[in-house]
Amino acid sequence: MTEPFRIAIAGLGTVGRGVIKILQDQSGLIAERVGRPIEIVAVNARNKNADRGVDISSYQWVDEPSGLAALENVDCVLELIGGSDGVAKDMVEAALSAGKHVVTANKALLAHHGMALAELAESKGVNLNYEAAVAGGIPIIKSLREGLAANAVEGIYGILNGTCNYILTEMRETGRDFADVLKEAQDKGYAEADPSFDIGGIDAAHKLAILTALGFGVKPDFDSLSIEGIEHITADDIQFADELGYRIKLIGMARRVDGKIFQTMAPCLVRKSSALGSVEGVFNAVFIEAEPVDKVMAEGRGAGEGPTASAVVADIIDLARGIHLPTFGVPASSLKDAKWANLSDISARHYIHLKVTDQPGVIADVSAVLKEHAISIASLVQRGHNPQKPVSVVMVTHESGAKAVQDAVADIAKIPSIVDKPSVLRIEHI
Amino acid sequence: MTEPFRIAIAGLGTVGRGVIKILQDQSGLIAERVGRPIEIVAVNARNKNADRGVDISSYQWVDEPSGLAALENVDCVLELIGGSDGVAKDMVEAALSAGKHVVTANKALLAHHGMALAELAESKGVNLNYEAAVAGGIPIIKSLREGLAANAVEGIYGILNGTCNYILTEMRETGRDFADVLKEAQDKGYAEADPSFDIGGIDAAHKLAILTALGFGVKPDFDSLSIEGIEHITADDIQFADELGYRIKLIGMARRVDGKIFQTMAPCLVRKSSALGSVEGVFNAVFIEAEPVDKVMAEGRGAGEGPTASAVVADIIDLARGIHLPTFGVPASSLKDAKWANLSDISARHYIHLKVTDQPGVIADVSAVLKEHAISIASLVQRGHNPQKPVSVVMVTHESGAKAVQDAVADIAKIPSIVDKPSVLRIEHI
Repeated sequence: MTEPFRIAIAGLGTVGRGVIKILQDQSGLIAERVGRPIEIVAVNARNKNADRGVDISSYQWVDEPSGLAALENVDCVLELIGGSDGVAKDMVEAALSAGKHVVTANKALLAHHGMALAELAESKGVNLNYEAAVAGGIPIIKSLREGLAANAVEGIYGILNGTCNYILTEMRETGRDFADVLKEAQDKGYAEADPSFDIGGIDAAHKLAILTALGFGVKPDFDSLSIEGIEHITADDIQFADELGYRIKLIGMARRVDGKIFQTMAPCLVRKSSALGSVEGVFNAVFIEAEPVDKVMAEGRGAGEGPTASAVVADIIDLARGIHLPTFGVPASSLKDAKWANLSDISARHYIHLKVTDQPGVIADVSAVLKEHAISIASLVQRGHNPQKPVSVVMVTHESGAKAVQDAVADIAKIPSIVDKPSVLRIEHI
Repeated sequence: MTEPFRIAIAGLGTVGRGVIKILQDQSGLIAERVGRPIEIVAVNARNKNADRGVDISSYQWVDEPSGLAALENVDCVLELIGGSDGVAKDMVEAALSAGKHVVTANKALLAHHGMALAELAESKGVNLNYEAAVAGGIPIIKSLREGLAANAVEGIYGILNGTCNYILTEMRETGRDFADVLKEAQDKGYAEADPSFDIGGIDAAHKLAILTALGFGVKPDFDSLSIEGIEHITADDIQFADELGYRIKLIGMARRVDGKIFQTMAPCLVRKSSALGSVEGVFNAVFIEAEPVDKVMAEGRGAGEGPTASAVVADIIDLARGIHLPTFGVPASSLKDAKWANLSDISARHYIHLKVTDQPGVIADVSAVLKEHAISIASLVQRGHNPQKPVSVVMVTHESGAKAVQDAVADIAKIPSIVDKPSVLRIEHI
């Protein structure tokens, strides 16, 4: 097995450049580990002549991504274009159909079309690898699919978007508002010009849908996910959470609830000292509860040229070493249709932040609504005392039905002396 | 590939029982993931009739461990006996020689004889898997060998012994002394009756020697490791470290230093908020610095029936899925003889704790010794002021040669007004 493993790369942005750098700079080390060289045969990108800081002159240039799928002398095609549909999807389908392995970093593609692609790959006897699609440099796909393959997963909890975690960390450390920190993150290049996929939780939810499928052996189902972003988190929320001993993190969560799976992406309160509570800045982390391993956590950089390329090349090395596993760890035909739980199925402690005027009267009104929904309050703190200005009332509930809390807060929002939309966040003791 | 993958198990203690439980309870799930059933064919232990809480009546009983190696109808033998030599080693050699894969949880065996066993396995075309030998349920062997296979490792830092981490955590939380907490840990079953392998750092050093070989592609060399245990850590040390913003942890470390590798096991000061500083109780963690992935950390339970069995069964699943990789990630013939660095090659900030009488005079004497060894002090704090009793002097050095610090402290210990042996610990900013 000393013949080279031959790859073609579609997409020469940050990740593509990183992959080429590793394969050029570490070719000896990698050949030793694999037992044969990995050879880049052909590349494709939108602009042939862009300056990428890597020499691509010895690789065949192909004008169309799908052209790579047609090359005879290629074992594996890398899809580093991005986007859930369009050229990326067309190229992946063409490559799999042509009997070539595919390695991708494309979380949107997997989240939306993972099931069909897994079936296609299997029918052609090839593999679709996607370590880089989730949590960047952390080898979490391999850990779930192989390292923890003896386990029945009970829950997966992740900080899966570095932009959001950076913004929340900065807001806490500086006391500044969301909009202010987002602007700075954009200036620094930590956030996209159009940040909606990141801060709206969509990007992280794509990743969670993949982890859920892999961890629980179910068909990936992005549409079943309830998604809430971090746009509405205020500096006050973060400060109050801090005083209560918590951090606010955008948490992707998939866990078993009475024979169903609850899958959600939302900002939550987690204890400061907890595994996820101490993950700061652009770092990602995934925390897994499973039987019999109990708790396992992994943390690392979730994005960037080096970490993402590390994961892409690990996938290539697996294929070159002859490691061939089904896309989601079991044959596509074995993936089950999950029964998805919703808010009515789960309970948790909740953080509720109200802005109120005329405070004495309103606490009675709020309490009446909560009582009506059978929600009991563990603590209530009022901040500020000025009859002329709204004050903050922060409540922490005892464990309560999540749907009941949402309904109660919707009713509370109708009380005339409540100003602004109340903020309600789950508290996750993981 | 629907024929069962057939295993035999030598050793039916805690881990063996855990493995049998998983393979019995999760047989359907595992068969789905593997694509074929895993079947226990035969077992061996010292006492056939011990009550183990699992039904072994349907497995062939073999009186001698090496008898398992001779069975025709077995693909893989599990060595769960333990010990670097004796029956465990004989059995593993016999099984490999007979062309059977071996899965083991035996860190001492790998640390001492890993090189010879890797060569034997390769010569027979079989595999030797040992995920459970390091950090229990954390899939760190797979992560290093596969998930991070695109990387050049710069450093590996681990909390690799749960007993030590439990004792250090308890000492900090309760302010009690080492001996007192060790006694309690023994009563609770967290520490062995003879705890010397754990608290002396030997067990953790076995694990580090394996990680070093795998991470750096060098021959495992336990004897090159400098090992210091935690027996001499006092409640005062932990308290002073805490005041300085640090935790004391038993840290296994292997990192590149000027073309050499520095490999050591010793209690160190790490920042409270750092990845390893926040790992508490019986948990283990491994922190890796590598290029291009940057930093990756994994945390989980390092021992116990479930976590260890999870790792053993993951190794079996790999083999049953047809994943066949060299023992240390590259062919044994490619493993290099490392150039090992020693204390003269590294520098670090250091924590020094002296017990002194006659304090005014002695500070001048101590300062003179430090000056002689070109060590400068970043801070010096004296605790207590009683001319009749010894007081503590705690110093933190600027970055200084580790050998120079050791030499200086040896000289300081000779100053007549120094009572007790000085405590000196490296500060690792990881």
